[in-house]
Amino acid sequence: MPNLTQALADAAAKIERTLDQVLSPDNAPEPRIYEAMRYTTLGGGKRLRPFLVLQSAGLFGVAETPALRTGAALELIHCYSLVHDDLPAMDDDDLRRGKPTVHKEFDEATAILAGDALLTLAFEVLGAPETHDDAAVRANLVVELAKAAGVRGMVGGQMIDLQAETQTLDLEEITQLQRLKTGALIAYGCQAGAILGKASAAGRQALLDYARDLGLAFQIADDLLDVEGNAEETGKAVGKDAAAGKETFVSLMGVEGARREAGRLADRAVSRLEPFDERADLMRETARFVVDRKN
Amino acid sequence: MPNLTQALADAAAKIERTLDQVLSPDNAPEPRIYEAMRYTTLGGGKRLRPFLVLQSAGLFGVAETPALRTGAALELIHCYSLVHDDLPAMDDDDLRRGKPTVHKEFDEATAILAGDALLTLAFEVLGAPETHDDAAVRANLVVELAKAAGVRGMVGGQMIDLQAETQTLDLEEITQLQRLKTGALIAYGCQAGAILGKASAAGRQALLDYARDLGLAFQIADDLLDVEGNAEETGKAVGKDAAAGKETFVSLMGVEGARREAGRLADRAVSRLEPFDERADLMRETARFVVDRKN
Repeated sequence: MPNLTQALADAAAKIERTLDQVLSPDNAPEPRIYEAMRYTTLGGGKRLRPFLVLQSAGLFGVAETPALRTGAALELIHCYSLVHDDLPAMDDDDLRRGKPTVHKEFDEATAILAGDALLTLAFEVLGAPETHDDAAVRANLVVELAKAAGVRGMVGGQMIDLQAETQTLDLEEITQLQRLKTGALIAYGCQAGAILGKASAAGRQALLDYARDLGLAFQIADDLLDVEGNAEETGKAVGKDAAAGKETFVSLMGVEGARREAGRLADRAVSRLEPFDERADLMRETARFVVDRKN
Repeated sequence: MPNLTQALADAAAKIERTLDQVLSPDNAPEPRIYEAMRYTTLGGGKRLRPFLVLQSAGLFGVAETPALRTGAALELIHCYSLVHDDLPAMDDDDLRRGKPTVHKEFDEATAILAGDALLTLAFEVLGAPETHDDAAVRANLVVELAKAAGVRGMVGGQMIDLQAETQTLDLEEITQLQRLKTGALIAYGCQAGAILGKASAAGRQALLDYARDLGLAFQIADDLLDVEGNAEETGKAVGKDAAAGKETFVSLMGVEGARREAGRLADRAVSRLEPFDERADLMRETARFVVDRKN
């Protein structure tokens, strides 16, 4: 997938610049928290979520700045969630993207506050006039991101995940958990372009359906990597789910079953994009990519 | 101050209902996190910040629903900040408003996630069409709240406060810390009415000047309570600053000096409201109240 690889790299570079801009520490009242915010946000990650914003925005002819700022806001949310997720009281991870987690590199209090600050900044970025000329679009971007990231979205999923350490989930419950925990932000990335471009309800729905399948395929692939990957390639500890006695798609469906299901979902995701022309081709390739990736 | 006491109680009751509404757990994917969010948000607190929203909104004839929703959003931010502030890695408090803190009543991971969810919900509330007919107003409310709560506002102040445990701050630095840590949300409360009511720049500035003095007076009074209050009246542990070896307004100015300065700031806050008619009377009384309160 030479096109996709190049497009992902280009998008990541642009998002990196936008993140660097919105995280400018000039005249900051307190330098250390900016260091922590920049440490965890800049210089890493596939930037898959903002890539989806850029791609979905491209379907509706949205200008670059609105798409980049919206993508950056989404990535800020993703990054904050990793910082808090890694905390000792949560997943207690020492390694993230191949380097020490924020509470290891700095300290726990700084990690809590840096996460809070990244979360808050996402909404400052979305609400600002530079993000879109139409304030109704900006307000809509804010509300949908808050829903996707909040208690009926990502955070709700994280809470179910916590509970899963003490009770056994079945396939339906795992699916619900992952739709919230990882699926909600991916869905936001896909529908953000439709919001920015004031797309029809049908266009937005097609993207949401695509995102739903993509998100699950992504998570199943993640579970497969946790079983089959190695720490060097993935940049994080592996085998953690099994060690924690957690059910995953792989523990419930087996390696082969999980791989088949991920492939089926990727196919279906592609079929959801039928209403769109060749401008959706990279999104089609993305569905393949997430199930084939090695990290 | 019978008028103010009654007005504060009335406002608190209305804000309580609005918070109960926006925290409705119906069809929630995960009940326990809602329990934690409701536990920490409902049934307590002076609701001073939302009261300031209601009062400042009253100066410009803003309808009740927009003011209540904006006040509730601000209170959600205040409540999240208390939950995270009380965590073991931060202030490590067991008691808040006379009951166990969230990480004591639930657990640490739930406290982290409940705080994140409250913070996120604040922006969902502000961005929603019910909050104001004009999307530009909603987007502006979002941006200003994010600034007040974020790394150049409250969270920045909390970070300076953390550093203060290992280095001695002088009066100027303490003032800067408090302007951010507690002042920024109070300032938001006072300017929110001006945003909702599309007030003139001069009107908004007068309210910000008032808020600046009020916020400092409030914090000096807080420091006095930490020295002179008792846990029963204040509903939280006292004498903590001295025990932690932290400089405060009281340690730097003495009890008498701090009391005088709080009084001076309250007087000046009142004088800032000169442009407004008798509809600002309760805000004038509020300036007296914050320096005389016992909890």
